[in-house]
Amino acid sequence: MVREGFESSLKSLKEEVVNMMEKVSKLIQDSVDSLVNRDIKLAREVIKKDDEIDKLMNDIEEKTIELIALQQPMAKDLRIIFSISKIITDIERVGDFCVNICKETIKIGHEEHIKPLIDIPKMRDIILEMFANTKESFINENYKLAYRVGEDDEIIDNLYKDIYTEILMMIHEDSKFISQGTKLLFVGRYLERMADHITNICERIIYISQGDRVSIN
Amino acid sequence: MVREGFESSLKSLKEEVVNMMEKVSKLIQDSVDSLVNRDIKLAREVIKKDDEIDKLMNDIEEKTIELIALQQPMAKDLRIIFSISKIITDIERVGDFCVNICKETIKIGHEEHIKPLIDIPKMRDIILEMFANTKESFINENYKLAYRVGEDDEIIDNLYKDIYTEILMMIHEDSKFISQGTKLLFVGRYLERMADHITNICERIIYISQGDRVSIN
Repeated sequence: MVREGFESSLKSLKEEVVNMMEKVSKLIQDSVDSLVNRDIKLAREVIKKDDEIDKLMNDIEEKTIELIALQQPMAKDLRIIFSISKIITDIERVGDFCVNICKETIKIGHEEHIKPLIDIPKMRDIILEMFANTKESFINENYKLAYRVGEDDEIIDNLYKDIYTEILMMIHEDSKFISQGTKLLFVGRYLERMADHITNICERIIYISQGDRVSIN
Repeated sequence: MVREGFESSLKSLKEEVVNMMEKVSKLIQDSVDSLVNRDIKLAREVIKKDDEIDKLMNDIEEKTIELIALQQPMAKDLRIIFSISKIITDIERVGDFCVNICKETIKIGHEEHIKPLIDIPKMRDIILEMFANTKESFINENYKLAYRVGEDDEIIDNLYKDIYTEILMMIHEDSKFISQGTKLLFVGRYLERMADHITNICERIIYISQGDRVSIN
């Protein structure tokens, strides 16, 4: 009976984590859209919505504490609950990087882009896929899928390197590209860091599912 | 009796967190030193030592789980233990940024610096002081000191802005500064992010001591 109570509480906790992932996934989409379309209104909305994410994280954390206090789970279950409490920190950090991107959008304002943005939306699409797979692997404790996310992280690292090289070359050619160029460099870096946090989540999922602490990026 | 056991386990857990903070504090010092002195050997050592930090984090986390499983603490104590588990993640992230700085040191290699590094060591010194105060406030649950760390974070933000402006101006003047200039920009950004993580720790300390969730940066 106690066990049943625990299982159902854990299930609803996991659902809230999935909900948080879905909300942050939307912020990833919107933050890069705001940059691409120079949509300052959207950028401001993302920044505002990130407060919700922080609140969700705190709520879930309180619930994990309550769950432990009321149900006094065994060590194995505690590991899952602790992992959830770490996973939500990484999800929250992904949200923070969306905010950082939006701040660059606002700084760039209505200025013409110094180049058509191609690699940045490409990074965004891969990250969204990584994050969707992370969600999937979290729901089904699918550790193999979690490993695959780690492999995609390499594509992100390479795309970031391409962006870095391209923008540095542009700045070399003409110093008028410096101001926006460095902002786009930062956006690239934020996306790369996002992917790192998503990879952290996958390491946690592997730990939950397999009991091994691995480094997949 | 059980309570006594809990108190002493919690005390030793806190000592391990303090030990972890001291080790990372050394990495902060060494990472910036490696950059300033173009000391690639030291940079490599920092990167290696960061593995130890990761291990310490995992060890402490295991111990928090054991502590909960064996002692079944009440909700208030669980909050402290959970906070410790979050604090160690932030300490570990500070260590990661030291690694990032060292990677830039290695990329710069034995190249002459494009400018005397003044603001970066200044940021380092303030961060070291913030971190020392964080440790102090963690040991004594001194929430007032934790708030003060949040105030120092503003100095870091301003120093970072100065570095950003200065380097952008240099790149404007001469494109030969681009490659190293952007590397130094990243170092500035890493230091700024370090200070953010230290501030996160202080928010946790305030939460442990006062029960309030606050945002101090």
